[in-house]
Amino acid sequence: MGELVWINGTVHSADQARCWCLDRGLLYGDGLFETMLACQGTIFRLKAHLDRLEAGAQILRIKLPLSQQQLRKAVQTTVNQSHLQSAYVRLTLTRGVGGRPSQLEDSSPSTMIWVRELGGYPQQLYERGMSAILATTRRNEHSVLSRIKSLNYLDNLLARAEAEQAGADEAIMLNTAGMIAEASASNLFIVKNGRLLTPPVEAGLLPGITRACVMQLTRTQGIDLTQRPLSLDELRQAQEAFLTNSLMGVMPLTRFQDQPIGSGKVGDLTQIIAETYHQLFITETCAETGEGI
Amino acid sequence: MGELVWINGTVHSADQARCWCLDRGLLYGDGLFETMLACQGTIFRLKAHLDRLEAGAQILRIKLPLSQQQLRKAVQTTVNQSHLQSAYVRLTLTRGVGGRPSQLEDSSPSTMIWVRELGGYPQQLYERGMSAILATTRRNEHSVLSRIKSLNYLDNLLARAEAEQAGADEAIMLNTAGMIAEASASNLFIVKNGRLLTPPVEAGLLPGITRACVMQLTRTQGIDLTQRPLSLDELRQAQEAFLTNSLMGVMPLTRFQDQPIGSGKVGDLTQIIAETYHQLFITETCAETGEGI
Repeated sequence: MGELVWINGTVHSADQARCWCLDRGLLYGDGLFETMLACQGTIFRLKAHLDRLEAGAQILRIKLPLSQQQLRKAVQTTVNQSHLQSAYVRLTLTRGVGGRPSQLEDSSPSTMIWVRELGGYPQQLYERGMSAILATTRRNEHSVLSRIKSLNYLDNLLARAEAEQAGADEAIMLNTAGMIAEASASNLFIVKNGRLLTPPVEAGLLPGITRACVMQLTRTQGIDLTQRPLSLDELRQAQEAFLTNSLMGVMPLTRFQDQPIGSGKVGDLTQIIAETYHQLFITETCAETGEGI
Repeated sequence: MGELVWINGTVHSADQARCWCLDRGLLYGDGLFETMLACQGTIFRLKAHLDRLEAGAQILRIKLPLSQQQLRKAVQTTVNQSHLQSAYVRLTLTRGVGGRPSQLEDSSPSTMIWVRELGGYPQQLYERGMSAILATTRRNEHSVLSRIKSLNYLDNLLARAEAEQAGADEAIMLNTAGMIAEASASNLFIVKNGRLLTPPVEAGLLPGITRACVMQLTRTQGIDLTQRPLSLDELRQAQEAFLTNSLMGVMPLTRFQDQPIGSGKVGDLTQIIAETYHQLFITETCAETGEGI
């Protein structure tokens, strides 16, 4: 079947999927989303993504039109119907149509699930690591939107586009206080004096599901990890750095603004964490065949 | 005809208007909008709104699918078709469907015009003035989005909802440096020592069309107006204050956080500016009958 869009219970081909023009998701970016990875029909950490969606909906006071169990089933059914071995899954929740702009209640929330083939990141990128620039745009830690995955995503797209125009892979975003928040589409970890560091949520970052996975696996592996504000200089002088998100997993960051980070090669601790994460992913999804992402 | 939605050349009734679900406007808030007021078929300051849309589109690198003349004609035709005496007109531009998230080119931008009857603000609100609270959310002056009317509008909705929950009409938003930016859906002017003051665009505000109108009319009326950063204390201690936007025009602000501003009544300078603006609006739109907004 390939690319599919499920909308409030009905499956459509992607080029036929239509929504209401007056949906507040379109009018104001009034909604939330999750991007997930499915391998051989299993969606990695689906529950964690649905928990985050629910938490965001509570903050925005959007009433989920489906229970978590129903959502889980809808995502699973759509992924199954796509028959894709490796799929990008995007779940979108909008407040729907209705009400005065500032009226958060009395609308009819809408859910959409988009499944398509995952291009995937080339293996050599994991081997050489990504390069990053510093984004012009800063993250607003004074807005609750910095901590939830809302449809107000344009700052991140502009930052990423800025990176690509400069020939880099990612863009590091500061918060308005000038400390590091995250990258445009991923969370950042660095190694300093042999210790793993990552900024806290209060720095204005989206708490990624992969970030949470890495935190979990450092605990089981006995790797010391501290959440604290990070400065740009600490990134520049880091021994190692890596980025995390649900689509690429753990990705080494080896260059920042045309300078190597540490040796400029994938660091030892990064390697261990990337491999452990990869193993976790395979165990939880494609375990039977042992195929990678 | 009443409420109508024009989408890329075709007119639909509002409850039938459908868009592509994979439009980047919905996926990421990747687009812009303008809200305008039409009186007896004339859209007030349409050209200024279209100029601002064009400027925003250039910043976001969205290629307008129509020339300004075509857009003007489309808006006018839709308003005419609605046969509404007093109409709210919203023009939305999205980047359309296509491309990787950070790929700003190679999509097919889409235009939508929504026309509906304008509820209007009750006369007694103009007579007693609005009340405002201080919003929790701050405007991010470090993002270009603070200066354009993008579909990333959720911070403003949340601020406005916060005001309404507190029983107030509007919410004053600070920027991340702690200075006043604007209100959730309007620009702020205050009177201090008999002089009119308003924050500059760099404070993280959307340069409103009504704000520009007020600037223009103060020049013709010989009223001194200065753009400079404003503190919360300056608002608290102001002699007068008012808010401006395209839907309500010039609206007195007479209370802030349960305290009166100045005498707590509509100030003299505010009165003059409100009347001059109202006259300008009537002259440019409903001149023949002299009907108000």
